[in-house]
Amino acid sequence: MSSLRYLRPAVRALAGYVPGEQPRDEGYIKLNTNENAYPPSPWVMEAIAEAARDDRLRRYPDPMGTAFRQTAGRVLGVDPEAILMGNGSDDILTVITRTFVPEGGLVVAPTPSYLLYRTLAEIQGARFQAVPFTPSWTLPDPWPLPDAHLTLVANPNSPSGTMVSIDDLRHLAEQLRGPLVIDEAYVDFADTSALPLHRLPNVVVTRSLSKSYALAGLRVGFVAAAPSLIREFIKVKDSYNCDSLSLAGAAAALEDQEYFRAVRAKIIAGRKRLHEALVRLGFDVCPSHANFVWARRTSAPVKPIYEELKRRKILVRYMSYEGYGDGLRITVGTDTEMDQLLEKITKLV
Amino acid sequence: MSSLRYLRPAVRALAGYVPGEQPRDEGYIKLNTNENAYPPSPWVMEAIAEAARDDRLRRYPDPMGTAFRQTAGRVLGVDPEAILMGNGSDDILTVITRTFVPEGGLVVAPTPSYLLYRTLAEIQGARFQAVPFTPSWTLPDPWPLPDAHLTLVANPNSPSGTMVSIDDLRHLAEQLRGPLVIDEAYVDFADTSALPLHRLPNVVVTRSLSKSYALAGLRVGFVAAAPSLIREFIKVKDSYNCDSLSLAGAAAALEDQEYFRAVRAKIIAGRKRLHEALVRLGFDVCPSHANFVWARRTSAPVKPIYEELKRRKILVRYMSYEGYGDGLRITVGTDTEMDQLLEKITKLV
Repeated sequence: MSSLRYLRPAVRALAGYVPGEQPRDEGYIKLNTNENAYPPSPWVMEAIAEAARDDRLRRYPDPMGTAFRQTAGRVLGVDPEAILMGNGSDDILTVITRTFVPEGGLVVAPTPSYLLYRTLAEIQGARFQAVPFTPSWTLPDPWPLPDAHLTLVANPNSPSGTMVSIDDLRHLAEQLRGPLVIDEAYVDFADTSALPLHRLPNVVVTRSLSKSYALAGLRVGFVAAAPSLIREFIKVKDSYNCDSLSLAGAAAALEDQEYFRAVRAKIIAGRKRLHEALVRLGFDVCPSHANFVWARRTSAPVKPIYEELKRRKILVRYMSYEGYGDGLRITVGTDTEMDQLLEKITKLV
Repeated sequence: MSSLRYLRPAVRALAGYVPGEQPRDEGYIKLNTNENAYPPSPWVMEAIAEAARDDRLRRYPDPMGTAFRQTAGRVLGVDPEAILMGNGSDDILTVITRTFVPEGGLVVAPTPSYLLYRTLAEIQGARFQAVPFTPSWTLPDPWPLPDAHLTLVANPNSPSGTMVSIDDLRHLAEQLRGPLVIDEAYVDFADTSALPLHRLPNVVVTRSLSKSYALAGLRVGFVAAAPSLIREFIKVKDSYNCDSLSLAGAAAALEDQEYFRAVRAKIIAGRKRLHEALVRLGFDVCPSHANFVWARRTSAPVKPIYEELKRRKILVRYMSYEGYGDGLRITVGTDTEMDQLLEKITKLV
């Protein structure tokens, strides 16, 4: 008798989300999952060592992450009661989906965008509908599906790196009859943020420390929303969703704003260089506000470039979207990594 | 307009799970959340320092936790493909619930037991029904609710510390028309384990490193089940549900079996001492196979004892169950902690 007969039909039908390749082998230049090109602040390692000292790990972490919420609140100018930490922003997005979306509900997001949104809907047993961005990467107005149980907009968007304006997001929130998630995983590489919109009753803003704070390995993200909503998210999250080391390391990373700004400036300079070099090589590159660029070509297929680069130990992300087409999403690396990428890619185009 | 109108009714109706008190203030003797009385293996701290070294935290962790699964498989004599790690066993229990239980479904567990099971059902929008243990802490036979979408048995049970036999669990699994979770969070303090039952098609066995490996602060648990089920759990879990430091620390803890056995022996000796002392003081104490004891009194209420101990900076867990009654769940502490507990409790009874 098969174990699988017990599954919820929604789960059985799932293809499952496939994260970017994470080779265990050290030899790769990894430009495929938007990890930061530079290490985290040294303050992070100090905070982790302190949190692991003596016998502290035998204790449960603070289930409310109070110290982290206070630090994040202070650094961002937000009420700590309006903040909740998650085990990566994936955890936050899961909690939000479970809070708002019933089985058989509707989840909507623009396309092309973060593929996880569809998976979150499907795990919940909900339908997912994608709304195409306009050719200039803005949101269609009027918004065609205002009745979703949850609408998610990645801003900056992945894979394009483009942004929609705060005014457009506010206008979208006003049209919706359900909540809007503004997923700001990459916003620290942009010039503006929609964080102030978390004060609207139907807007939640999510953030990640994986990219801009170089802490993908530590799994910390957070959400800003009305305190009344945060209290509901707390009911849905696992009690101890963030461990002691992650909470301590993440707070230390947020504290070191000087280091953060220096890394950010290097990545933005690298992004400009990568953008210009790819344009010179004949790629169509979106203006990016993130730590990656989205490179397309109409003259020839890009999948062979991804494959050849992989053979040469450089990983970029090949992505293809139904009704839109494909492209390469390339993370901004260090200068040395980009020298090697550009040298190799020049021979392939 | 209230933000709360967007909530799923199931979430709005939730009271929310309340974990044991975790005072941030250092002055307490904490015997309320079953943390280990002793620190984790020194190998854990070494592994964490190594995993945080250089710029490793900027990388995503291995989404499959391959190294951890291999270590756990080897130590426990289980196929690594039959194992999946979670962000604490709470994460595992959440993933299992989402895999099997539809909205409007039915979740069943014995009572009195772990209160989280009800919360997991309620978040999912499912009904929860409790089946009373027999007066001798065995399972009723025949099992009255064989049609649940998920049945959970904590073994050893909390708060009682009692166990049901492997044969009884196998018999329960045979009667059920859905999957059975055997929650072995405390099993390392017992003499037997139902781990071999994970090979049955409808049994999953969960474990935690929080208690026996003194890693509550690190959030690592795992599940053993048929590989075909594990593949479904992978579709439901967050891609990167365990961070790099937790995976490394947890694997190191499992490797150090010599340390583990020494700590286990001390706790079992402490449990015997605590049990005997509480019996002498007139408590009715269950024979415990865990790192806590469950102490009741028929002659006088126990809640004032909990309150007075708290005033004297000793935290134990007061628990009350509908249709059953109340008691004190007291974690086995160090000898010094138990000296202080027993000195103070003697004056209160």
